Amino acid sequence: MLKVNNKKCVLPISKRAREIQGSPIRKLAAIAEERKKQGIHVYHLNIGQPDLPTPETVFNMIKSVSRKTIEYAPSNGLPEALTAWKRYFEHYGIHFDESEMIVTTGGSEAIIFAMSCICDPGDEIIVFEPFYTNYNGFASIANVNLRPIPLTIDNGFHLPDEEVIESYVNSRTKAILFCTPSNPTGTVYKKEEIERLVSIAERHGLYLLSDEAYREFVYEGKMISIADFPSVHDRSVILDSCSKRFNVCGSRIGVLATHNKDIISSALRFAQARLSVATIDQISLVPLLENPSYYAQPIVDEFKRRRDVICSNLHKISGVTLYKPEGAFYMIVGLPVKNSDDFCRWLIEEFDDKGETVLIAPGCGFYATPNKGLNEVRIAYVLESKHLERALEIITLALEKYRNRKIS
Amino acid sequence: MLKVNNKKCVLPISKRAREIQGSPIRKLAAIAEERKKQGIHVYHLNIGQPDLPTPETVFNMIKSVSRKTIEYAPSNGLPEALTAWKRYFEHYGIHFDESEMIVTTGGSEAIIFAMSCICDPGDEIIVFEPFYTNYNGFASIANVNLRPIPLTIDNGFHLPDEEVIESYVNSRTKAILFCTPSNPTGTVYKKEEIERLVSIAERHGLYLLSDEAYREFVYEGKMISIADFPSVHDRSVILDSCSKRFNVCGSRIGVLATHNKDIISSALRFAQARLSVATIDQISLVPLLENPSYYAQPIVDEFKRRRDVICSNLHKISGVTLYKPEGAFYMIVGLPVKNSDDFCRWLIEEFDDKGETVLIAPGCGFYATPNKGLNEVRIAYVLESKHLERALEIITLALEKYRNRKIS
Repeated sequence: MLKVNNKKCVLPISKRAREIQGSPIRKLAAIAEERKKQGIHVYHLNIGQPDLPTPETVFNMIKSVSRKTIEYAPSNGLPEALTAWKRYFEHYGIHFDESEMIVTTGGSEAIIFAMSCICDPGDEIIVFEPFYTNYNGFASIANVNLRPIPLTIDNGFHLPDEEVIESYVNSRTKAILFCTPSNPTGTVYKKEEIERLVSIAERHGLYLLSDEAYREFVYEGKMISIADFPSVHDRSVILDSCSKRFNVCGSRIGVLATHNKDIISSALRFAQARLSVATIDQISLVPLLENPSYYAQPIVDEFKRRRDVICSNLHKISGVTLYKPEGAFYMIVGLPVKNSDDFCRWLIEEFDDKGETVLIAPGCGFYATPNKGLNEVRIAYVLESKHLERALEIITLALEKYRNRKIS
Repeated sequence: MLKVNNKKCVLPISKRAREIQGSPIRKLAAIAEERKKQGIHVYHLNIGQPDLPTPETVFNMIKSVSRKTIEYAPSNGLPEALTAWKRYFEHYGIHFDESEMIVTTGGSEAIIFAMSCICDPGDEIIVFEPFYTNYNGFASIANVNLRPIPLTIDNGFHLPDEEVIESYVNSRTKAILFCTPSNPTGTVYKKEEIERLVSIAERHGLYLLSDEAYREFVYEGKMISIADFPSVHDRSVILDSCSKRFNVCGSRIGVLATHNKDIISSALRFAQARLSVATIDQISLVPLLENPSYYAQPIVDEFKRRRDVICSNLHKISGVTLYKPEGAFYMIVGLPVKNSDDFCRWLIEEFDDKGETVLIAPGCGFYATPNKGLNEVRIAYVLESKHLERALEIITLALEKYRNRKIS
């Protein structure tokens, strides 16, 4: 321990606090705000915040609340919210009792609870990189080590062979965490790919943590849930969220669902420690969960159109490496630059075309392995088609100028 | 690692998940629900959920929301919520810039962030027992060891001498976490007591984590905030919550506030990982934070009346050990029983008087040291006076019957 008598001495913070990465999605946001103050219009393709409206029903629910007191909800969730989640899953042929779920503050908290239930400090969870960068932050809070297995743009970020995945399992490995449809790649894993994970999990005694927040966003192929594999019901945990499919990112309602009773009972004790999830938000989303197709389908249809627009326009830019994402609303794109971090910063900080520029997330932030994704960016195609087209036009002009700038 | 080929094998969960305590506040709640189904009326004195109404203003704010989309808020909080917290603190002569605060999901999340910023696994935080039992859960998520220093009912749970506290500091100690006015004891620490902590923190290079969620609930003495000690501004973190003072427990809005830039910047990175705090809830509480006395004073006045009622009625029960709590709305009471856990369970499970019974929290759950608080209970005096009087009448009758039952 540092013994200090000097009152002005700066105290040390924890190792994990020093090491936790800032969000690569949000790190250029402050520069964007500066540019806006200068009158520059910024197209935001950096963050998964769609421009679509939240269903009116949510506001109607909020406005019709007739409680006298905004009380704590039960720690596992309001009974009506648990029943709504049960019906939501049933809509997709997935069966969970109310007692097999914990309503969480966003999908984020579901992931933290799952990691805490399964791992002690120093234990490992396998992830596939590029991965949802916030997994890093959750792992840091829970003191878990992520063990990344690299994927490649060449096959649209599909999973490697079983032997390759298996070679990353060691004595500290406790689980495989995966996301399908994937943020940040938009890949939808095929049945054979999930079967590979199932087989490895059974052979090595691992948990399967399945982030299914983008369940409805499938444009090619079919959504395969870990719930479709009864042989691993005892080792599967579904981590889910209302945010994207219903356009309610700011409501922060997610769920942890599993048939494993030990996980549920310990997750409940973690949930009791933080008391409850916001009461009004739980109530407001009940109608959406009870009728998911009605609310999600128009949103998914719009994103399919946008995906087609962004892919056909990206194809026109010379030197760009891409694949057609099968789901979600993100894609990783290889750009003809050596350092996309530098390019993204230059684009938002210095470039504009007719007073407009674009904010995109550098790819390296989605990798844990150093020097991976250096020429890649993640694009969240969360704007309407005409704005996507304009944003890509700006990127095309910027790439040209950026490369010439480098040569001159 | 456990290698299992048998698919039915139950997988191990983590050590921390096995060890995390269920909430002593909530553990008898399921039995209470059963009794209610049998037609028994239950007076809930187990949990800090007041029966008072939430201010109308909150519902008006919620109903006047005119957004098209419920978007993510910024990770550190909505600008209007941060400004409201700044004004809230200014009302009490405490100055924090917006950049020195992170809006959190309840005070709970503020405590988890503070622990994560300051401690690595195995590091210790000193607490005073009996302490708010949920500190255990936060410590378990963050993998921090709590080091309890016992207080005693004999002096109303005030702090021991400096040398006693100091003897608990070791090379892993990183912080002292305390709560004034205190949950669960209702003790309001005097200036000299906080000075003791300040002096120890300066001498040993410790952080001071001050849980001030009950700031307004002071009936005797004066609220002393850690912010009143400029010499430790660099090592102090205030953890706060709207829940109790405004009767909005289910809105889950708290804050972490500190002048320490390293803590704020790392807490922000943890906050980015979980994206944001619920948008509508942040908006709905802004008017309360901007005018705290107006909204909190009637609530505090009511609780002062209740405290007087509960103390004068408890005095009438023979064999009860008590002190007059100076703040908050809890007190620890010594009962003339050997095992209050057994008594509380019997009371809710088997006893009734004219179809009514009482749920109270066994005291041992608020201690980390084994065999402490065995004859104590925590009473949350969250009901109106006539119900408190009736609840105490029931407890009196129950104690009599329980003791006779034991003898016979």
